[in-house]
Amino acid sequence: MVPTIEWKDGIVRMLDQTRLPLEVTYFECKTYQDVAKGIKELIIRGAPAIGVAAAMGVALGAQDVKAQNFTDFYGEIEKICSHIGATRPTAVNLFWAIERMKRFIQSHRERPLNAIKELLIEEANRVLREDVEANRAMGKHGAQFIKDGNTILTHCNAGALATGGYGTALGVIRAAKEQGKDINVFADETRPVLQGARLTAWELMEDNIPVTLITDNMAGYFMKKGAIDLCIVGADRIARNGDAANKIGTYSVAVLAREHDIPFYVAAPVSTIDFAIPSGEHIPIEERNRAEVTHVFGKVQIAPAKVRVANPAFDVTPARYITAIITEKGAFKPEDIYKLTE
Amino acid sequence: MVPTIEWKDGIVRMLDQTRLPLEVTYFECKTYQDVAKGIKELIIRGAPAIGVAAAMGVALGAQDVKAQNFTDFYGEIEKICSHIGATRPTAVNLFWAIERMKRFIQSHRERPLNAIKELLIEEANRVLREDVEANRAMGKHGAQFIKDGNTILTHCNAGALATGGYGTALGVIRAAKEQGKDINVFADETRPVLQGARLTAWELMEDNIPVTLITDNMAGYFMKKGAIDLCIVGADRIARNGDAANKIGTYSVAVLAREHDIPFYVAAPVSTIDFAIPSGEHIPIEERNRAEVTHVFGKVQIAPAKVRVANPAFDVTPARYITAIITEKGAFKPEDIYKLTE
Repeated sequence: MVPTIEWKDGIVRMLDQTRLPLEVTYFECKTYQDVAKGIKELIIRGAPAIGVAAAMGVALGAQDVKAQNFTDFYGEIEKICSHIGATRPTAVNLFWAIERMKRFIQSHRERPLNAIKELLIEEANRVLREDVEANRAMGKHGAQFIKDGNTILTHCNAGALATGGYGTALGVIRAAKEQGKDINVFADETRPVLQGARLTAWELMEDNIPVTLITDNMAGYFMKKGAIDLCIVGADRIARNGDAANKIGTYSVAVLAREHDIPFYVAAPVSTIDFAIPSGEHIPIEERNRAEVTHVFGKVQIAPAKVRVANPAFDVTPARYITAIITEKGAFKPEDIYKLTE
Repeated sequence: MVPTIEWKDGIVRMLDQTRLPLEVTYFECKTYQDVAKGIKELIIRGAPAIGVAAAMGVALGAQDVKAQNFTDFYGEIEKICSHIGATRPTAVNLFWAIERMKRFIQSHRERPLNAIKELLIEEANRVLREDVEANRAMGKHGAQFIKDGNTILTHCNAGALATGGYGTALGVIRAAKEQGKDINVFADETRPVLQGARLTAWELMEDNIPVTLITDNMAGYFMKKGAIDLCIVGADRIARNGDAANKIGTYSVAVLAREHDIPFYVAAPVSTIDFAIPSGEHIPIEERNRAEVTHVFGKVQIAPAKVRVANPAFDVTPARYITAIITEKGAFKPEDIYKLTE
């Protein structure tokens, strides 16, 4: 697989996910503003990948800071962080990564500024590396839930493209495949941005994992037919009580899974858990541009020009619909994830 | 509203629904093969409209039959009917209209062939007229379920465009509006063919009924928020036990409605009820072209070229999810519709 994001020769290079699968192109960020633009415009997306991008964005921005003392330097860092933090409200990994970088800087405040700048690049790369490691651990913990011969439904893209690499939900699927299990995947296309059709289908085909693409409204049909054994999705933010925000439509998949007695798993790193909020009601839901709904690829009009549109980008699946949350620390019942703070 | 279909100067003229809402163009059928093509390629769609098109197709085909006696004439009619009948398997109105035209011919077998040909045009126009009348009656019976201030979710297009005029599900909504009720509609875009985005949004805007377009996977989100008071959809075939086939995704809407204690209504004329089949399991589900899923408008590619695709065009909602079936004869609990045969 091509890397989703990397630090290379002093720039941050992102695979442009808005162009996939038709074109494999890269978006090169020379400034932290470029990184913020990449996040905001979905050139990079997926909660863990957004976290990595934010960390790299802070490191990139730091290189250009001209301050002569730590106080001034940190003041500039705070501006950079608030610019990057203003891109997307729902995925908590964005804020988690920004806070991590800030704490890292504070913990090295006695070092010369040039040394801090160098260390920030290392730290951003560590965020990337740790994310991949977390995904591999998640894969091991999650693969137990997939039996030989199973067909798995997934929604949106929680794959290598949504993370530093390997993937959360797709990481679990990859791990099951690596264990020699014969598996099939149904991928919801995931309107409006079509991450399932464009990214999940592409990733799984690249890995030779059999995948069938369906429109979002077909999931219930295939569950009723008995074609789906389990569902695995990622998450953008998980509340302390186990309620999980993920791409719009996840909640509907969870309700349908419950109706058909199909297990429903959420795979996400601990960095996706927001221990500060008691329930999903506190998760802000991003409302995106109407053009995502009225146009495909922002170009092809599919609805009357002046139609009223709603475009919430996420929904919250209450903990009671979730069979288990799979993290790098193991799989937990949703009501037990608060224990991960201990 | 422009007519969905009409008999005009010896041809059958259909509004080309594949081009809406961007272009208002017409498809002119000079032969019954043109009519069959119009049905198969979704130039006209919606169960009642398909029934009208089939009746007009039989009448159109009959005009060109060169037979000298009734037996030969009827033999040719049977060929025409089987060609038209081979277009789409799910909507029973297609077969209902064909059978009606055949019975009509048989009942006039003593008349001169030229007279029968003339009478067939009248009969096809009667099928159209009766469909509009049925929709208006359905509207009256159904509007009682809509209260002032309600917001209604609908899926696909069961409007004037899906019928001879006025609509089934949208007919009920129109009738409520005509009663002076203040209503709002949420329209699922209805992938893959986007009948909701392209047709329902357009129809309701033309009628100044407030409509909000959403992607199919947002319905659950808005139900959970309490934004939806009731759901109304059309049907392509209803079994004797009240199970109802309709556009893919309808079943998911019904499950979500049940989960949120939201009433779920099906509006359809008696011609959509297939009294010959005991349950929805006997309804054939059309599998359509993969390009509908991988491409938008058959042109814009949105998925990897070689991805495996499933494209069932319909699903079956079991009777237990349906609050009532609204017909031109009144509203019935699904388990009571068998009484309409009496």
